Amino acid sequence: MQSPDISHVKDYFLALQTSVCEQLSEVDGRIFSSEMNSEEYTRPRILEEGRYLEKAAVLLSHNKGAKLPAAASERNPHLAGKPFEAAAISMIVHPWNPYVPTFHANLRFFVVDQKHWYFGGGFDLTPCYPFPEDVLHWHRTAKSACQPFGKNLYNKLKVWCDEYFFLPHRQESRGVGGIFFDDWTQGGFNRSFSFVKSVGDHILPAYLPILNKRKAMAFGSREEEFMLYRRGRYAEFNLAIDRGTRYGLQSGRKIESVLASMPPRAIWKHNWSPGLNSPEADLYNNYLKPRDWIRELV
Amino acid sequence: MQSPDISHVKDYFLALQTSVCEQLSEVDGRIFSSEMNSEEYTRPRILEEGRYLEKAAVLLSHNKGAKLPAAASERNPHLAGKPFEAAAISMIVHPWNPYVPTFHANLRFFVVDQKHWYFGGGFDLTPCYPFPEDVLHWHRTAKSACQPFGKNLYNKLKVWCDEYFFLPHRQESRGVGGIFFDDWTQGGFNRSFSFVKSVGDHILPAYLPILNKRKAMAFGSREEEFMLYRRGRYAEFNLAIDRGTRYGLQSGRKIESVLASMPPRAIWKHNWSPGLNSPEADLYNNYLKPRDWIRELV
Repeated sequence: MQSPDISHVKDYFLALQTSVCEQLSEVDGRIFSSEMNSEEYTRPRILEEGRYLEKAAVLLSHNKGAKLPAAASERNPHLAGKPFEAAAISMIVHPWNPYVPTFHANLRFFVVDQKHWYFGGGFDLTPCYPFPEDVLHWHRTAKSACQPFGKNLYNKLKVWCDEYFFLPHRQESRGVGGIFFDDWTQGGFNRSFSFVKSVGDHILPAYLPILNKRKAMAFGSREEEFMLYRRGRYAEFNLAIDRGTRYGLQSGRKIESVLASMPPRAIWKHNWSPGLNSPEADLYNNYLKPRDWIRELV
Repeated sequence: MQSPDISHVKDYFLALQTSVCEQLSEVDGRIFSSEMNSEEYTRPRILEEGRYLEKAAVLLSHNKGAKLPAAASERNPHLAGKPFEAAAISMIVHPWNPYVPTFHANLRFFVVDQKHWYFGGGFDLTPCYPFPEDVLHWHRTAKSACQPFGKNLYNKLKVWCDEYFFLPHRQESRGVGGIFFDDWTQGGFNRSFSFVKSVGDHILPAYLPILNKRKAMAFGSREEEFMLYRRGRYAEFNLAIDRGTRYGLQSGRKIESVLASMPPRAIWKHNWSPGLNSPEADLYNNYLKPRDWIRELV
């Protein structure tokens, strides 16, 4: 099998990065920084302390390596240690407002040993004070992204996302999920790439309406403190569990790019648990476990 | 070899916990909570939002398990998966004042398969704005703890500590180190236990004078922000690197006890670096790399 040209994928990721930054800046008012990193081709674009976004990071990377890191090939151990080329885009938004969920998305393309290729990616949502209609919109948009590529595809990738974004040490989901896929070659390169573009094109349509609806809601120190506490979980997931972070640390990427997803602020409180029937308990009881959102929330 | 009685070790750890909590409370004014956890014998004692200590945790645990977790036996892979019994004390202080260093200490005793036993432990210091005389006092006290047990012992355990408390992804030491040891059986049980007691008895003599000297120093938002930023490194170490945390997660211990060492607050800033010749640069340039403190700081 001939290796497909990575440059088309990279071009799409670059266009997506530009578009996501523009649209987020239009909502926020603040512009993304743009650094160029020459040692490898990475292009982190960061927005810090905006009007609505406490931190947003949209990172593009393209790198080659002599040995595929173990974390990138756990599902394909026979590829570990082989020469590879990878292009990826990842993005995360940590908003100021506790009523706006944190969101994360990632798309990636690997070519290993100049012949094996696969895509991976997805997007997931992490609210502190979830609104059922937001979660429904998020998952319906995810389903729309998958629809043209298989009747049951959304259901499959939704379950995959639930499994991936889970904190075993807390026995908690990270948030309300979304879709996740890896080692993706289905239907060959052109069809797989079309699917990845469909996912990419649905990211902001899934998130922006929620951001716009909640960004100006009034909140107090109680809600802010809960948001910071929940960000502690986000830090736990990224540092102790996430395969993407481990891959980044193993592949020797610039550490500030690997950890650009970290929350700008986080707190830990010993033995804290939400009050009975509180809005915080609603998150734990009704949202931090996998559910069939589209069926149950209508 | 007959297995030594774990109860003597546990009695010492319990007495040390009581003593450490009493002495820290005497400095701070605030009393430690005392929870009893019945499922296994753990006794976390926590002080939150004290006068000088933002958070202090002194944890005692005694547990038995059917299978020794991999993280507890990386250096002795033949012991993994065997039945074990463990007693441990660990402690950490996160002070409010950026001029007071964070400190951590740990002592542990394992009996595996009812016949193999070993000790482990040590203590290490993590300042934000270090004073040479504090670092010297810390390391001299560590040396005193080791002195009766071998002429060169401090040097060996100091290097071991430097190697253990290192963040490879940052190419930074966690702090200025101290001493660290593992799989310790030297001289048999009685001598090893005496050594462990010597280390335990030197913990607060190493830390309290520094705490008392710096606890009331004036500081501003710049120093506080730098402290919170450095605590991000602490979170990175604990979650992504520390073997003790991994052991805790693998052994199924109560998660709030495993993560009691987490900083109460932390921040991450993208691509931040200290200004030229600033006090913050002094930390990076002169302290976050292994040095022969006792020789160089006199």
